[in-house]
Amino acid sequence: MSEQSVKANHRDYNLQSWSKQKGLDPIVMDKAEGIYIWDPSGKRYSDMSSQLVNMNLGHGNRAIIDAIKAQAEKYCYIGPSYGSEPRGELAKLLTSLMPDTFGKILFTNAGADANENAIKIAKQFTGRYKVFSRYRSYHGSSFGAGNLTGEPRRYPLEPGIPGFVKFFDPYIYREPINFESEKAAADYYVAKLREQVIYENPTTIAAIILETVTGSNGVIIPPDGYLQGVRKICDEFGILLIVDEVMMGYGRTGKMFAFENWGIKPDIITFAKGTTCGYIQLGGVAVTKTIAAYFDDNLLSCGLTYSGHPLACAAGLACVNYYIENKILDNVNARGVELKASLNSFKEKHKSVGDVRAIGLMSAVELVKDKKTKEALVPYGKDPQGTMKKVNGELAKRGFMTYTHENMILVAPPLIITADQLKEELAKLDEVLGIVDGMI
Amino acid sequence: MSEQSVKANHRDYNLQSWSKQKGLDPIVMDKAEGIYIWDPSGKRYSDMSSQLVNMNLGHGNRAIIDAIKAQAEKYCYIGPSYGSEPRGELAKLLTSLMPDTFGKILFTNAGADANENAIKIAKQFTGRYKVFSRYRSYHGSSFGAGNLTGEPRRYPLEPGIPGFVKFFDPYIYREPINFESEKAAADYYVAKLREQVIYENPTTIAAIILETVTGSNGVIIPPDGYLQGVRKICDEFGILLIVDEVMMGYGRTGKMFAFENWGIKPDIITFAKGTTCGYIQLGGVAVTKTIAAYFDDNLLSCGLTYSGHPLACAAGLACVNYYIENKILDNVNARGVELKASLNSFKEKHKSVGDVRAIGLMSAVELVKDKKTKEALVPYGKDPQGTMKKVNGELAKRGFMTYTHENMILVAPPLIITADQLKEELAKLDEVLGIVDGMI
Repeated sequence: MSEQSVKANHRDYNLQSWSKQKGLDPIVMDKAEGIYIWDPSGKRYSDMSSQLVNMNLGHGNRAIIDAIKAQAEKYCYIGPSYGSEPRGELAKLLTSLMPDTFGKILFTNAGADANENAIKIAKQFTGRYKVFSRYRSYHGSSFGAGNLTGEPRRYPLEPGIPGFVKFFDPYIYREPINFESEKAAADYYVAKLREQVIYENPTTIAAIILETVTGSNGVIIPPDGYLQGVRKICDEFGILLIVDEVMMGYGRTGKMFAFENWGIKPDIITFAKGTTCGYIQLGGVAVTKTIAAYFDDNLLSCGLTYSGHPLACAAGLACVNYYIENKILDNVNARGVELKASLNSFKEKHKSVGDVRAIGLMSAVELVKDKKTKEALVPYGKDPQGTMKKVNGELAKRGFMTYTHENMILVAPPLIITADQLKEELAKLDEVLGIVDGMI
Repeated sequence: MSEQSVKANHRDYNLQSWSKQKGLDPIVMDKAEGIYIWDPSGKRYSDMSSQLVNMNLGHGNRAIIDAIKAQAEKYCYIGPSYGSEPRGELAKLLTSLMPDTFGKILFTNAGADANENAIKIAKQFTGRYKVFSRYRSYHGSSFGAGNLTGEPRRYPLEPGIPGFVKFFDPYIYREPINFESEKAAADYYVAKLREQVIYENPTTIAAIILETVTGSNGVIIPPDGYLQGVRKICDEFGILLIVDEVMMGYGRTGKMFAFENWGIKPDIITFAKGTTCGYIQLGGVAVTKTIAAYFDDNLLSCGLTYSGHPLACAAGLACVNYYIENKILDNVNARGVELKASLNSFKEKHKSVGDVRAIGLMSAVELVKDKKTKEALVPYGKDPQGTMKKVNGELAKRGFMTYTHENMILVAPPLIITADQLKEELAKLDEVLGIVDGMI
């Protein structure tokens, strides 16, 4: 089919996510391999966001493709109440990668419904109805996940669900307080959260859910002591700690799961994207043995047609085994050091770079008009001149594909990126940041 | 892997949907073909519910499997903003099967998120916030879809979302009123709905959503005139009519979409299950050209990582083309007549059968203790003696696999079932109904 026909179908028959539909001019996918995508003209793009931070192993991974093809020949689907080899094997494998307190997994289709079900489980287990989540977080856009979300993608879901309470995250760069140390910052945010928990009546709070590292809202990395402090609040008041590892799980931050960076043990882990790298949709909710045991004799009032989809689980098995067998975390840690060093040098060099934040191969470059005042390159929730679109366009012109959010550029390449590839791409970013310097 | 290991993994590491987890003894899936499934011992089961009413074409469909394998070799995934051949082609094909008023499609992963997004679109398009849905309906179990749902699977989601309003469906069998005719029933239910719409303030109501034929809550088939009347109410007050065709779409009722049975044109159609028969998860929201055009210049504030998943869309293309090329609807209509005749004869014959309802290859047998009083075999929402489990067990013993809901047995075989196969299976049902007669 011609490039023009694919574009025409896209424009004429598809509603494209998070977009105004007029004038869409999509890049047509022709082929993809590793960190690269080619359009029909042969132009090569590097996938510097791993698509939506899901393609951790990049495109065309042979092990996953072969696993899908082999399972498709056996059977593609059977209902959740049947025993299915890939379903049980994947649940066993994932549990083995988690703290030894973890017991069972409810599989879902993606991250949004993983978070939906995590809250449902927390409500059922605790008998409480309130859920705490953070501003500047994204947990999905269905009603439950979207009510957890603390940014404009939540707005169309209002009026909100009773009992969904928001608190602020440790966004130190834009905090009016000047903290003396990372510990002082952690102590401050934990104390504020504890105060809010008390004022909301702790005996009504089922769970606190947070992205271990805030993802698309700007790679907000918690100061050391923060997550440990949140864990303590949960313990004090019998509240479940749910970590949303949808974007950060499976090596993105240099650990298999991001919470390992701070040595905490959550009660519930939600995951999706990197589980299969999106080759087939799959998400899930992992719970501790204690929570799992509650549902031995109490009805688990959660379910979906495709829970534990065998074909998706077969893809997940191949994918997660690939991380382990190919020591992908080692590459993340090596490349992560290089990425962080480069971004730090860009911060020194470019007047438009207010802050950079990086952990493993997850990073954000925060653009400002003025380093001193920290005035954002575009005001929050608005971009009247299409400035960020222009910035993204300059990157795309150079074949550097990623996405921007508010005044931030996300850089989150596939975890298989080589040192040379990373260097080549960061040179493009450097060049574009020079252009942004000229815009302010 | 041994049957025992698969069972052990299932029990030890999976949380099974809608279940107490203690003592689960799942049938292990060994192979499947057409309407049959075999466990490792070689025991054959007939899939008389098409799993969760999604495997319309049964198991092992070669066209779908080959399409998945071929697309997997090209690429499995690319983000929603890229042009992708299977995504655009499937959107075009599905739109061509709908009324000519229909324009575009937002793809989702399943039925629940299709309904979630349908409401979000309706709210954005109308600027209103209330949504009407029915008791005895199931639209999914995430917070939005679950708040639409009008039965116990909604309970864990309470407190409910503001603006979600419930009305009663045309469940004529258990209505205290004795209607003179189908028309009289339709008129009554439409008038009650109109009254409720007025009392809820029509200018705040974005949409009325209903399963065209209520599915798992008992195959409640609307009397002729009902859907036409709901359409009129929507037109009168500027309310969008959303039909949930997740279970009934793609030939289940003998038409490509169930609403065609009553000649109405909805504003939004949600679909899932039969689109791919679940070989890979896929759902979606189809909207009229008018609604689609609104989002030309207004941000569509909906999205998900896997919207228009290319591998899923490739499966969907093969599946939907299979319905058309193999004239599956003809088989549904022929077998549907036989199914209905058999069920009617069971109603005559068995004192435990209070009512039977069938349309196409979707049907329910409603079990009662007493035909006159219509007292249900088990009280609503309870089954203290595990009676329905026993009934299901008797069916399973004979290799007749389906599921029961409240006091009802669902019979919804794959749409490819032959006359002989249907006869063989209905003989088993007949036998089991004889056992139920002895239980009351």
